[in-house]
Amino acid sequence: MKSDIDRLMAERNLDALIVFGGETPNAHRAYLTGGHEANATLFKKRGGPVAMLTNSMEVENARLSGLPVTTYNELNLHELWAQYAEDPDMLTVKSYERYFAHFGIVAGRVGVYGFGNLGGSWETLKLLSQHFPALEFVGESQDTLFDAAVATKDADEIRLLKDVGRRTNLVMQSVWDFIAAHRAEGNRVVKLNGEPLTIGDVKRFARGKLMEYDLEDPEGMIFAQGRDGGFPHSHGEDSEPLETGRAIVFDFFPRDMRTGYYHDMTRTWSIGHATPEVQKAYDEVMTAFNAAIAGIKVGERTKKLQEAVLDVLEEFGHPTSRSEPGTTVGYTHSLGHGLGLAIHERPSITHMRDKDAIEIGAVFTIEPGVYYPDRGFGIRIEDTVTIAEDGTVENLTPMHKELILPLRG
Amino acid sequence: MKSDIDRLMAERNLDALIVFGGETPNAHRAYLTGGHEANATLFKKRGGPVAMLTNSMEVENARLSGLPVTTYNELNLHELWAQYAEDPDMLTVKSYERYFAHFGIVAGRVGVYGFGNLGGSWETLKLLSQHFPALEFVGESQDTLFDAAVATKDADEIRLLKDVGRRTNLVMQSVWDFIAAHRAEGNRVVKLNGEPLTIGDVKRFARGKLMEYDLEDPEGMIFAQGRDGGFPHSHGEDSEPLETGRAIVFDFFPRDMRTGYYHDMTRTWSIGHATPEVQKAYDEVMTAFNAAIAGIKVGERTKKLQEAVLDVLEEFGHPTSRSEPGTTVGYTHSLGHGLGLAIHERPSITHMRDKDAIEIGAVFTIEPGVYYPDRGFGIRIEDTVTIAEDGTVENLTPMHKELILPLRG
Repeated sequence: MKSDIDRLMAERNLDALIVFGGETPNAHRAYLTGGHEANATLFKKRGGPVAMLTNSMEVENARLSGLPVTTYNELNLHELWAQYAEDPDMLTVKSYERYFAHFGIVAGRVGVYGFGNLGGSWETLKLLSQHFPALEFVGESQDTLFDAAVATKDADEIRLLKDVGRRTNLVMQSVWDFIAAHRAEGNRVVKLNGEPLTIGDVKRFARGKLMEYDLEDPEGMIFAQGRDGGFPHSHGEDSEPLETGRAIVFDFFPRDMRTGYYHDMTRTWSIGHATPEVQKAYDEVMTAFNAAIAGIKVGERTKKLQEAVLDVLEEFGHPTSRSEPGTTVGYTHSLGHGLGLAIHERPSITHMRDKDAIEIGAVFTIEPGVYYPDRGFGIRIEDTVTIAEDGTVENLTPMHKELILPLRG
Repeated sequence: MKSDIDRLMAERNLDALIVFGGETPNAHRAYLTGGHEANATLFKKRGGPVAMLTNSMEVENARLSGLPVTTYNELNLHELWAQYAEDPDMLTVKSYERYFAHFGIVAGRVGVYGFGNLGGSWETLKLLSQHFPALEFVGESQDTLFDAAVATKDADEIRLLKDVGRRTNLVMQSVWDFIAAHRAEGNRVVKLNGEPLTIGDVKRFARGKLMEYDLEDPEGMIFAQGRDGGFPHSHGEDSEPLETGRAIVFDFFPRDMRTGYYHDMTRTWSIGHATPEVQKAYDEVMTAFNAAIAGIKVGERTKKLQEAVLDVLEEFGHPTSRSEPGTTVGYTHSLGHGLGLAIHERPSITHMRDKDAIEIGAVFTIEPGVYYPDRGFGIRIEDTVTIAEDGTVENLTPMHKELILPLRG
């Protein structure tokens, strides 16, 4: 959590850190500023506050973070813009000279974080490394300081995540009710006027409901029917009519519009009835899901959960990424992931990774599934859970897990 | 436009380019894949196609781009994952060895593009530079290949941008009509039940309307009243009730949900009536706006437009970023920017920049404004325009520019 950052800097022998970035979304910056990014660059010395540097147009937004804010104007940057208008490299060097002086970064190891333009930052960091030999710029490709920090959430974050979960579940129940209010003609689900109900109609309804609950859908929900559901990341075709007796994978991962926190849940539905093949696979995935939930224990490696699921699904005869590495059918993916201000955070839950443990304050998904596009279906079930102070598992995804969605229209 | 990319590579002496990236939005990747990013890394040799490398879960999405797709499985990457599980640096090197061999990148200058994790790519690029001495990795901090490419749009893109503009204008007119349907009690705008109409209510209405038109609002609209409107980037307070006689800056920049193209427009409204001070400033900004539009001429530097606006507003006595560099009141920002799949693209329209010209196929905003937070208001007016094949200016933002929004409720 945020209070771990100075410790995590010490572990990495970092004297300071900088979060770079431009206008594009920046999970590191969002995390440190409580969502008030204000297009700022962040500077932090170990033991000191996170300081924001931004332009005067963003200063009101930046101050909402509660962090100290400096503007380019206050550092008289416009002098440099005029002086070095023809020499962008020197403008960069002279600008950072002022930033480093202002924020007291004079020597040592400086952690490089943030999200943005990769080619630009590659050249900038080469330039800074050359002109400021007392500073060593250190990036992290994986298991970064931020990965470690966000792997556990503090009480404020848990409260926000629970609230996003509560609202997401209400919206998904509304989508169930919306579909259920229709009727079938043959195997087609139709509206009152006899026109087919399409995946686009359902997504539009879901987005409208999200909005009522101050949620947004920046990554685009998955609502994939039949063969499409057999590809874990296929989002479904808007123009496709809903049909009875086909498995629909509905993976829903909205974000709170104000705080930026995500929820993540998946249900698999079959309208009216399910084929025996789908029902059997569904029951097997549920068995795997329950095995994973039952296996959650503070202090254990997360990979134990994936191993439990692999054991169950292999026992049922499904190919898996352990029994057949690289398989595109059966159980092909990892079991889950942490989430917070990003949709994929630590901990990771895969048998390929031994580093992550189940910790108090972790918030993560459990999402086993099986995929058979050539047999025309995929199945996935996903809840988000957290580990309470006393080590118990709290499920943030209360919605029922009925497979068969009966039509009442 | 996209057909310029080989020429732009030749100008930069690039033998190949790579667009790196992870899960975060990536304007370079979106541009080259027509929005079907599929979490891919892109490889392109000069004169060759853009090739996508992704995982098997994303392959269906990737193929929608029409580009050639390779999966990690096809390169037998899982062998490496097992072999180098304990040595992530060597895993990176060996993986790229396979990518470079597969895509035929063996020597020369390789342009580095894309958006993503800056610290990770800094370390990855240092590693690749060290292990592949025949390759020189070259980033661009500004005036990049992509900046140059997107500065003009081809006919398909113009068509999409016009369509987003048309729908955005319909939504903004609906917001005007929605507010107009209310009534005032004293200086408060109220609903039928007498409760105040808040900025949050208006934004919620606008988001609902956007959805009906398959538009989304990923960056969050600006609807800023009174003093808040005096800070160009303040987004407005949801809880604040609308009041008559106060300037409201409504800056609206939604994105098409399917294609990812943006529109950008701003209107300033004053409900019921306007104070003489606001009306005067509004008329002055309109004069500046019209001077800019009248000055648009193919082949001219864009800065001429900003200079025309600075001349007008300084003549009216407003401080500007030319007359008082660093000012936070008066006219404080640049005149406009290109837009497409990103909200800020080339050309830039500022007196600080001499490089950009007005070109056929350019799509850009014209958005003069004046800001006086201490006097309780800001004014901005913004349309998006394009330069047609015959050099004429086409305005993509047809909505009227009435300042006073009368209540009819």
